[in-house]
Amino acid sequence: MQLGLVGLGKMGFNMRARLRDRGHEVVGYDPRPEVTDVGSLADLVASLTAPRLVWVMVPAGEITRNTISELASVLESGDLVIDGGNSPYTDDPGHADLLAASGVGYLDCGVSGGIWGLAEGYGLMVGGSDADVRRAMPIFDALRPEGERAGGFVHAGPVGAGHYAKMVHNGVEYGLMQAYAEGYELLEAEDLVTDVHGVLQAWTHGTVVRSWLLELLVKALAEDPGFAEISGYTEDSGEGRWTVREALDHAVPAPVISAALFARFASRQPDAPAMRAVSALRNQFGGHAVRPAGQSDTNGRER
Amino acid sequence: MQLGLVGLGKMGFNMRARLRDRGHEVVGYDPRPEVTDVGSLADLVASLTAPRLVWVMVPAGEITRNTISELASVLESGDLVIDGGNSPYTDDPGHADLLAASGVGYLDCGVSGGIWGLAEGYGLMVGGSDADVRRAMPIFDALRPEGERAGGFVHAGPVGAGHYAKMVHNGVEYGLMQAYAEGYELLEAEDLVTDVHGVLQAWTHGTVVRSWLLELLVKALAEDPGFAEISGYTEDSGEGRWTVREALDHAVPAPVISAALFARFASRQPDAPAMRAVSALRNQFGGHAVRPAGQSDTNGRER
Amino acid sequence: MQLGLVGLGKMGFNMRARLRDRGHEVVGYDPRPEVTDVGSLADLVASLTAPRLVWVMVPAGEITRNTISELASVLESGDLVIDGGNSPYTDDPGHADLLAASGVGYLDCGVSGGIWGLAEGYGLMVGGSDADVRRAMPIFDALRPEGERAGGFVHAGPVGAGHYAKMVHNGVEYGLMQAYAEGYELLEAEDLVTDVHGVLQAWTHGTVVRSWLLELLVKALAEDPGFAEISGYTEDSGEGRWTVREALDHAVPAPVISAALFARFASRQPDAPAMRAVSALRNQFGGHAVRPAGQSDTNGRER
Amino acid sequence: MQLGLVGLGKMGFNMRARLRDRGHEVVGYDPRPEVTDVGSLADLVASLTAPRLVWVMVPAGEITRNTISELASVLESGDLVIDGGNSPYTDDPGHADLLAASGVGYLDCGVSGGIWGLAEGYGLMVGGSDADVRRAMPIFDALRPEGERAGGFVHAGPVGAGHYAKMVHNGVEYGLMQAYAEGYELLEAEDLVTDVHGVLQAWTHGTVVRSWLLELLVKALAEDPGFAEISGYTEDSGEGRWTVREALDHAVPAPVISAALFARFASRQPDAPAMRAVSALRNQFGGHAVRPAGQSDTNGRER
Repeated sequence: MQLGLVGLGKMGFNMRARLRDRGHEVVGYDPRPEVTDVGSLADLVASLTAPRLVWVMVPAGEITRNTISELASVLESGDLVIDGGNSPYTDDPGHADLLAASGVGYLDCGVSGGIWGLAEGYGLMVGGSDADVRRAMPIFDALRPEGERAGGFVHAGPVGAGHYAKMVHNGVEYGLMQAYAEGYELLEAEDLVTDVHGVLQAWTHGTVVRSWLLELLVKALAEDPGFAEISGYTEDSGEGRWTVREALDHAVPAPVISAALFARFASRQPDAPAMRAVSALRNQFGGHAVRPAGQSDTNGRER
Repeated sequence: MQLGLVGLGKMGFNMRARLRDRGHEVVGYDPRPEVTDVGSLADLVASLTAPRLVWVMVPAGEITRNTISELASVLESGDLVIDGGNSPYTDDPGHADLLAASGVGYLDCGVSGGIWGLAEGYGLMVGGSDADVRRAMPIFDALRPEGERAGGFVHAGPVGAGHYAKMVHNGVEYGLMQAYAEGYELLEAEDLVTDVHGVLQAWTHGTVVRSWLLELLVKALAEDPGFAEISGYTEDSGEGRWTVREALDHAVPAPVISAALFARFASRQPDAPAMRAVSALRNQFGGHAVRPAGQSDTNGRER
Repeated sequence: MQLGLVGLGKMGFNMRARLRDRGHEVVGYDPRPEVTDVGSLADLVASLTAPRLVWVMVPAGEITRNTISELASVLESGDLVIDGGNSPYTDDPGHADLLAASGVGYLDCGVSGGIWGLAEGYGLMVGGSDADVRRAMPIFDALRPEGERAGGFVHAGPVGAGHYAKMVHNGVEYGLMQAYAEGYELLEAEDLVTDVHGVLQAWTHGTVVRSWLLELLVKALAEDPGFAEISGYTEDSGEGRWTVREALDHAVPAPVISAALFARFASRQPDAPAMRAVSALRNQFGGHAVRPAGQSDTNGRER
Repeated sequence: MQLGLVGLGKMGFNMRARLRDRGHEVVGYDPRPEVTDVGSLADLVASLTAPRLVWVMVPAGEITRNTISELASVLESGDLVIDGGNSPYTDDPGHADLLAASGVGYLDCGVSGGIWGLAEGYGLMVGGSDADVRRAMPIFDALRPEGERAGGFVHAGPVGAGHYAKMVHNGVEYGLMQAYAEGYELLEAEDLVTDVHGVLQAWTHGTVVRSWLLELLVKALAEDPGFAEISGYTEDSGEGRWTVREALDHAVPAPVISAALFARFASRQPDAPAMRAVSALRNQFGGHAVRPAGQSDTNGRER
């Protein structure tokens, strides 16, 4: 099947390779000459046979919006666009409407799997009409893990449902990672445990907590024993915040996902204003000593 | 190899079967005549050839303490006892000392895998001396998942380290389960998502959140769509509390594991005293309406 | 000073009384004939001498928007509108612009104090220009607690700053209430404590935790011992969610405020989907018993 | 009334002064010659007329245990000891039994108020028998805030109830402080708010969140604008941990108090092992960049 693929970054580059391996014809466009197949979005469209299928795999937000907008002006009635990026699901109806005005169809597709998807396949969560999903199904089948009847792909609902499901997936991911991380720190903190790496590795088989993330944790710890070479400063990339925002809007308690997110915020604050306030208060009422500014850099964990 | 096995409940019963399947000679003792091989602990000991190996698989706390104590009086110097139950790791030194007074060795072994261990093997976390671990290794090898060089087993450290690692394992498990559960509720709460079961099933392959627990969640939801047949009342069995207690003792932040535990506490309180206090306060300062007692039973989630 | 006051509900009604007590001329408008001074918003405007000062005290959202919009069409250049309701601060620039198009000034004013403000005065947080604040100052001075030079009033910043400060105030309030509520439940849960009401009352003087909210809690408990007559079902009214949303947008950790909010969400869910999922999972891996649907109504707290 | 007072630190020194101001005869003992009235505990006992009343105000734990133990050997039947320190309530029965063996009575008394108690009076929470409480009542009345019939003092229950109530008081205090601190940080984070100190000061009168702690926060911020001179490194002193432990034992959800405590733990970890694990995981699955060790010291908060 023929596919136009806009965006050849970490994700798109690998997806092109996986699709070609499985016999699909992929024309990729990216502003970077060293990876692109064509010189422009217009060239990409010109090189595809109508009705066209174009997969957008660019950063969420303005770049996705601009790409969808430009595609709406160069594509033709009967074409179909898939946004595979991490767009907020609230952007999807607008994208669908914009394309629909030109007679172009739209699917939103959450893609999970990261850099491992090339070899292992990607988990796909899709929103849109039955007809549009059916049409793109050969591409989805090539991207998802092989040999699975049920896993790795879902048509989750109408436009927006795919990105919503992907957003929740990432929120869950925050919670899972933090749960393992707290467990790791508790193992590290106890002198009785002399082989922390071995414990985590043991957990990867036969236990209730076994998972792919746990296997990655074991691998990471083998590569950097004691995580000695990296700092605790941890970014977040939006979906965690969006998930908590949805929890607020739906009145769903999300204590674990929010705690995981706030732990990341706090990891980036060596001297949080809130904690300076607490420290100042302790000093005020109890005469407790405070540390002068700039002296919070020793690890205060007791063992 | 010959093994005495005390306790043939959900776990011990399956472990006997798995060990016999792999060619070991197991003499099991349990007070229930329908499952036991011998009539008493003394019979069990008499039926084993010295130096003996006895695995204790009974409920943590008083029953384990009593069993260890009785074994200390009937076993002989050179024998070895393994506590495979969910004992708090703080009990282990006492058990080891008691047995050591009779010249009997001691290992603590956290066992994970639940009712699935029979077929899939158990994850084992062991504490004790190198010599004792080496001696019991054929038993550990038969219980752990097959075909694994590294996973499913760890000699975590000296006496106590095995149960400590199992305790943390269970704490992590609380966090993982709650993370998936929050994600499930967020999917249920959003009308756009028309196939919640399908989304969870898709997640089981190719995604970052894939895991064994997720597969069980998909299975459970298939068996009871919408979890219509069960209540939200959720027990906890001790290890979660112990894990948070360790976090307190080690000054390790555990916001996720504690949030998961507190969610279980709250699930058992249809009218928590704390929330009645908050509701009363709102009424006091703002004249906000309160619900009369006994009327908290409608689901207030907005969609 | 002359003031038009739109909205004579729980708050506006008392504010009119307090302002009149302090010698101001207040013309109040409300759709309910039994409380209003004039028959319509147009009548209200006609009854005031230009340049007019109009205080809006109606529910946030659509009603406030409509009121501001109508005022923009009937007021004249040089008039000044104050929104004293609980509007989200993000609405303020739009309101200001709408009025500015007619030459009308705008202040946003967060008002705290609830039904007690009539007697004790209100805490006021104001956003807008220096000139507009100066002009309305006699009204602010009459509303704020007497005899205070510094407390009870702040010009927090430009338009929006008043409602932002009020939103954060309410978020903090959520945290404070939940902290006391957890303490109350811990006192109730311990048999050693035979006089819980007495403990809370003792806390109101001399201790570090003394506060006005604590005094209300003591009063509420005296009126309804053991909070026997109310349910734990606890509403939230928006500002808590907005505060957490701001925390997300500013990457500020807000574990306490969010935990307080989520506790309210959970209080309204006797059988949360998330907890049914956790319970189902426990059953899957461990064979742990679950409760059938509809049987979560016994208090499971252990003592 | 005559009182022996053991321990003349920050708290005991002020209490002696307050009691003497109110006409009581206080003999104080402290190992530091510059503050003590007598040379030894034996001297203290010798200088008091039987039946004696001795107040212990020394650090909790070993020092309190040793002091109680020494008093048990030098006091006589009919004497009465009050432990006013921050002992865990679980220590009280042992202390009571030890003294009872010599015929000496025992009260446990939680004391709140910090360095402000000298002038404003202390909040007192007492556990013990009615007779013992009645006997010491003149001392309690002199320590508690004046002019209050109901506040500042409670006989909370039998031995242990006083320290239990004080422990919960301190747990609540953790939650309150963190709630204000999160609010402070949210105000600081928003550019619209140009007078953060003014907002907090406004809150001290007329608002729902007014409290003594808030007044201290305003005072602290006036003394050190922007908390520029202190670090965020925040100690905890035990009672917060004990409170969460009680929550675990009683199955009481304590999400707010525990979140406040964990925020303090985290404030002392510039590079938490848990967060290094999360950061390493993000890198593993997504190829996300990590920061090298030692580079977590820039404030990552976005505005």
